[in-house]
Amino acid sequence: MTERRLKHWGWGYEDQAPTATQLREAAEGIRARFGFGGEVEKPVPLAEVELRKARLKAPSGLGGLFSDAHYERVSHSLGSAYRDVVRGFYGKFENPPDLVAFPGDESEIEAVLSWAEAEGAAVIPFGGGTSVCGGVEPRLGERPSVSLDLRRLDRVLEVDAESLAARIQAGATGPGLEDQLREHGLTLRHFPQSFEYATLGGWIATRAGGHFATLETHIDDLVESVRAITPRGTWESRRLPGSGAGPSPDRLLIGSEGILGVIAESWVRVRPRLGFKASASVAFDDFGVAAGAVRALAQSGLHPANCRLLDASEAELTGAGAGSANLLILGFESAHHPVDAAIDTALEIARDHGGNPGEVRTAGDGDDAVGQWRGAFLLAPYLRDTFVACGVLSETFETAITWDRFEEFHATVMETARRAVAEASGVAADGPGAPRVSCRFTHVYPDGVAPYFTVLAPAVRGGEVEQWDEVKAAASEALIGAGGTITHHHAVGRDHRPWYDRQRPAPFAAALRAAKAELDPSGMLNPGVLIDL
Amino acid sequence: MTERRLKHWGWGYEDQAPTATQLREAAEGIRARFGFGGEVEKPVPLAEVELRKARLKAPSGLGGLFSDAHYERVSHSLGSAYRDVVRGFYGKFENPPDLVAFPGDESEIEAVLSWAEAEGAAVIPFGGGTSVCGGVEPRLGERPSVSLDLRRLDRVLEVDAESLAARIQAGATGPGLEDQLREHGLTLRHFPQSFEYATLGGWIATRAGGHFATLETHIDDLVESVRAITPRGTWESRRLPGSGAGPSPDRLLIGSEGILGVIAESWVRVRPRLGFKASASVAFDDFGVAAGAVRALAQSGLHPANCRLLDASEAELTGAGAGSANLLILGFESAHHPVDAAIDTALEIARDHGGNPGEVRTAGDGDDAVGQWRGAFLLAPYLRDTFVACGVLSETFETAITWDRFEEFHATVMETARRAVAEASGVAADGPGAPRVSCRFTHVYPDGVAPYFTVLAPAVRGGEVEQWDEVKAAASEALIGAGGTITHHHAVGRDHRPWYDRQRPAPFAAALRAAKAELDPSGMLNPGVLIDL
Repeated sequence: MTERRLKHWGWGYEDQAPTATQLREAAEGIRARFGFGGEVEKPVPLAEVELRKARLKAPSGLGGLFSDAHYERVSHSLGSAYRDVVRGFYGKFENPPDLVAFPGDESEIEAVLSWAEAEGAAVIPFGGGTSVCGGVEPRLGERPSVSLDLRRLDRVLEVDAESLAARIQAGATGPGLEDQLREHGLTLRHFPQSFEYATLGGWIATRAGGHFATLETHIDDLVESVRAITPRGTWESRRLPGSGAGPSPDRLLIGSEGILGVIAESWVRVRPRLGFKASASVAFDDFGVAAGAVRALAQSGLHPANCRLLDASEAELTGAGAGSANLLILGFESAHHPVDAAIDTALEIARDHGGNPGEVRTAGDGDDAVGQWRGAFLLAPYLRDTFVACGVLSETFETAITWDRFEEFHATVMETARRAVAEASGVAADGPGAPRVSCRFTHVYPDGVAPYFTVLAPAVRGGEVEQWDEVKAAASEALIGAGGTITHHHAVGRDHRPWYDRQRPAPFAAALRAAKAELDPSGMLNPGVLIDL
Repeated sequence: MTERRLKHWGWGYEDQAPTATQLREAAEGIRARFGFGGEVEKPVPLAEVELRKARLKAPSGLGGLFSDAHYERVSHSLGSAYRDVVRGFYGKFENPPDLVAFPGDESEIEAVLSWAEAEGAAVIPFGGGTSVCGGVEPRLGERPSVSLDLRRLDRVLEVDAESLAARIQAGATGPGLEDQLREHGLTLRHFPQSFEYATLGGWIATRAGGHFATLETHIDDLVESVRAITPRGTWESRRLPGSGAGPSPDRLLIGSEGILGVIAESWVRVRPRLGFKASASVAFDDFGVAAGAVRALAQSGLHPANCRLLDASEAELTGAGAGSANLLILGFESAHHPVDAAIDTALEIARDHGGNPGEVRTAGDGDDAVGQWRGAFLLAPYLRDTFVACGVLSETFETAITWDRFEEFHATVMETARRAVAEASGVAADGPGAPRVSCRFTHVYPDGVAPYFTVLAPAVRGGEVEQWDEVKAAASEALIGAGGTITHHHAVGRDHRPWYDRQRPAPFAAALRAAKAELDPSGMLNPGVLIDL
């Protein structure tokens, strides 16, 4: 549908793939740095990917909305988890949708739903395909499926500059909606790692975590109202700044991962573009001490926009630190007033809690630790494709926990993941060439923290999926067993189901199932994520 | 159950009723001030209240949990709306519960539910009885009912000082839980007008609005996890600072008004007791100009704890102003750092937007405008009992709306309410002795505001309920017609149903109904609020 096509596997556009020389150099660099990784292998080209024959035929009346083109079916088969990227690399697209639909308006969404319901087909709403938990993969056995790609609904439809809100279609990507808001001097400032490709509708459906380390940590907080198309009518909430009229309708749709309806558009809270910012990094010798400083900051009421603690390994990995120090990236910002006093107070807290602050920067992104980290953050998904080609397992998982349990929780999860990845990789857990597990904080709260873990290991080539699934299962058991959440902002999808099923209150699961059965009696909408009917 | 008994009608304890002399003087004062109001009448004494015979008999095995005492049945018949107070005054308790249950733990809640389900009886969870929308009244026709009073579950069970959280039973009142938290140097700082009598469980069930004018405006934001007893098992969410694992289970319980389960306890976010505060009042000649200043403050990111704008009439009513100026009550607070700079920046905004700031006070509540207003705020419900005795209609209603629509919305609602109350009262809408309608802002947001309206008028004695219902219907039509919410923090109950039914998305209503049918198939839990099965 677009001129510049996304890669059929992995991250980014087709023209962004590294050259053979770049990959060879990367493989050498990786081996030198980590002591593991192999020779460069090549992905299975699109033309050589073998797909199951489509089991649905587009209806003649709606033909223009559907595609059964090879590229479209392939590129709507998987999300963007490591287990997706590596399968895509090897050309294993075992669960392709039978058709891909590209509705241009709500009536076309309704038409696709009606037709699919009559056909007994499943419909999987698809935004940027950046799910890292199997949220968009048609893992449906014999049931035929349609991937419903919202990309044509990509407009900012209305801007209310007085209330600082905008009505935006669900298929608008991060850069797409920011470009349109920029004309009004406004911004959403929702910058998850998926920013370049993911969509507003996808963020709402998955409760995406965003830019802000405190206060508005999730897209939930930026949603003023939502409009969704369900098989039983349109679900539209009123635009309200706040309400106490019954349980929040929006909060039932937010995080519903497509099972209740197709999010078509939303009024979201936007803000003027930044006038003031200040950032600094703070070094800590000890991670536990650093966590204590972050707790004090999170409980101070200063509300830093950025408050991301990288452990020493993570800091070294992202090039933000030398590898010996734990690094706290601290940032304040305001469209309205200077934030110098706020960052000074915050740095005082950090100093009082054993930190060693660097210089305060107000100019934006330089080549300092803060800028290094931000650059690495957005590059990480591209780099992962390179890791896959070079025989390196590279994946992340994340959670949240209250402060009182954090120290033991962190130790348990780290140790579990370290052991599991060594075992699954058939290597020693320590010493040169050992797998690496590192941790950073993505979001912080007065009552707790969202730790985010990165795993790097020598890939078991050809067995990467099983290798990672073993690690993931062990880590997930540790998270759930120790009282955490199976996900702070990566959603549930299909991959997190076994642990999500243990986490959620049973009566809530029953209520959600009943709600779905009412709105989607044929169970056509994204079956298998969150619940089973 | 307690030594000091609540009045069987109206607000407060039996020993707090004004004397005959005080009432006579009040009536004179009211007539002089407002130009309306009549002679003092006396409420029907408890002993003279005639109740329908109880249709349920407590089971022998659970007998100790139940009471059919006259006082208990009377005092669990009504909430605290004007239409409740006035009915109580006249001794009209038309819908008493047949029994009142006082469970002491969760197993006793379960026992009451099981027994009631077998009996075909309805169960209405009851906290402080401060509902102002018919949320606790057994308006159930032929169906017998039990009022489930949670007062015995009044303990702070656990304090996690590291995460700043506390596990508190649902029946703890504002003062009750604050007393227990004070021992730990902590506070919930949730101070709705119902603070003295309402309970944590009631606040959660009704999405109560609290102390903070910005950020944590509702109890929703203070809830870390909830534990509720449903007819189909215990609904308990994990303690998590944040999560993205599916739609929030807590957000479906918060605001469910007892229809899904009985909230038994909750982990809530608490905070250290205050170290720093600063407040000031700002006078504005024009209400629209003042609203513009509040919008700028709400969008500044300064997050004032208090940002309540009283129009000139409301300011005069509460004794905070002389009656000619609109008054903004602005306050900042922090347990951690001084707030002088924040209030200075805020007052600069107010000045830039046409305001005339008074002196900044940091000492707490003096006899200034800020303190005057706060005193009046907590006294208002007591005063209403006096108004009823003196033949004055006194009631409030509230809503929320985005800023872009505020000006026209405010004008429409004010004018509608003014006309409706004059007509329903049989008096002129203007001139001496005319009814008064005034407005204040209780909570403000970057994208909008929660306006709160107060109505005072000569009561149509003996016809007060019909009189107010006429005004309420007209005002509600205006709110809903102009895009507002039927309630920002007073909940839905039974009184708001006709307008709530038009406000909520139809598929959400269907989903909620299905969820309830799943968890409460006999429809025993608080039937008639929010939805019908």
